[in-house]
Amino acid sequence: MSNKPTLHTPLSPALLHLYDVSNSVVVIIDVLRATSTIATALYNGAKSVIPVDSVSRCMEIGKQIDAITAGERDGKIAEGLEYGNSPFEYPKEFIEGKTLVLTTTNGTRLLHMALDKGATEVITGSFPNLSAVCDHLVEMKKNVILGCAAWKDRVNMEDTLFAGAVIKRIKEHFSINCDSSHIAEEMYEKAKKDLFAFLKKNDASHYHRLMGFGLEKDLRYCLTEDGANVLPIYTDGKLVKKQ
Amino acid sequence: MSNKPTLHTPLSPALLHLYDVSNSVVVIIDVLRATSTIATALYNGAKSVIPVDSVSRCMEIGKQIDAITAGERDGKIAEGLEYGNSPFEYPKEFIEGKTLVLTTTNGTRLLHMALDKGATEVITGSFPNLSAVCDHLVEMKKNVILGCAAWKDRVNMEDTLFAGAVIKRIKEHFSINCDSSHIAEEMYEKAKKDLFAFLKKNDASHYHRLMGFGLEKDLRYCLTEDGANVLPIYTDGKLVKKQ
Repeated sequence: MSNKPTLHTPLSPALLHLYDVSNSVVVIIDVLRATSTIATALYNGAKSVIPVDSVSRCMEIGKQIDAITAGERDGKIAEGLEYGNSPFEYPKEFIEGKTLVLTTTNGTRLLHMALDKGATEVITGSFPNLSAVCDHLVEMKKNVILGCAAWKDRVNMEDTLFAGAVIKRIKEHFSINCDSSHIAEEMYEKAKKDLFAFLKKNDASHYHRLMGFGLEKDLRYCLTEDGANVLPIYTDGKLVKKQ
Repeated sequence: MSNKPTLHTPLSPALLHLYDVSNSVVVIIDVLRATSTIATALYNGAKSVIPVDSVSRCMEIGKQIDAITAGERDGKIAEGLEYGNSPFEYPKEFIEGKTLVLTTTNGTRLLHMALDKGATEVITGSFPNLSAVCDHLVEMKKNVILGCAAWKDRVNMEDTLFAGAVIKRIKEHFSINCDSSHIAEEMYEKAKKDLFAFLKKNDASHYHRLMGFGLEKDLRYCLTEDGANVLPIYTDGKLVKKQ
């Protein structure tokens, strides 16, 4: 038997219950665009990011504390909020020292599911902070769950690819008896030369959606490694940069 | 808008509820080995195959009707049953004209879920009857659900690969807005040269399990196309060969 910690990849929140989340580090993966934007805001000096699952909750917190409220519906800033979900809306000049309350349905739900199930630690992962995530997981030497946020529980291509990118980098440190993880790695292996082209070729649902909103720049940024290489870690109701 | 029927691929029974099963043809996929054995028994002349989800149910039906009871636990014939789950146990000389009651946990559960959700038709798919499945789906011109039986709801490699094989052959006839389907096709594309080697390389969980039982011959047969090219179709509680 191997003494290495285990690694599993639930491809959808609807599969999370199959895995032993307690005593695991859970990585929340919501590549387009929630977890990419979270990494970017923290990289650019945001004090913290509070992920919430609804526009009303976002507005509520925005009234209670001094914070920027953000969220979209159908590619536009949601009524009652101030900013959108694009990482490009949060440069250093704007976000430094501030708190961002970000509406993100799929990712926030998964995050709370992981906490409810007793996760040791919850962090967020995206291509812009791929290296920080990998370094941290190797350092922790704990069981890992790569939790794909998916889209309304339907498996998606980009979150699967990010899980694969992590696995490719850190697999030697883990015992991986999980077909989903191997599927993710094989997919990433096939796609890595040009992730954008791969999503396009496969007519991935979020590729289609974001391109329809004219967000090619967002897409390309969210598929690029290490542009905002910090580790967001969930503590006391908010995501902060690991020091 | 396309007038083509849709095609979706739930990679696990735990994801089936996300899709509109009513008015769809559902393909039950349990490559290692249930649906491969079902195709083989019918190809070799079995009158019908009754899939059941437990050994006790299998014994019960075996007492009620003149039938062969089959099922395994940990790679051995289950106590109280007569035969195992290997397709090689059901040659023409033995199975022709007989009814087989086959214990298959994951596949049977999925089959009943699909019926409960109002599937128009339920058929079973495996590499040994790949062409029959594809021809039928194209001919039907109805929405298709490629339902992977998985393993206790965990996504597995071989069922995903079979879904991919079907998609590769029939995709022109369907409108496919489903990342899981594209993932399955990409996986199959990568694996198709040598499915056995691909499962081995990825240390797929069922590859590992069946090899551990000395069943390489079963594995190779279950990964080979069209060795038992019939269409099992579920009618009145049993699977029969489409005439």
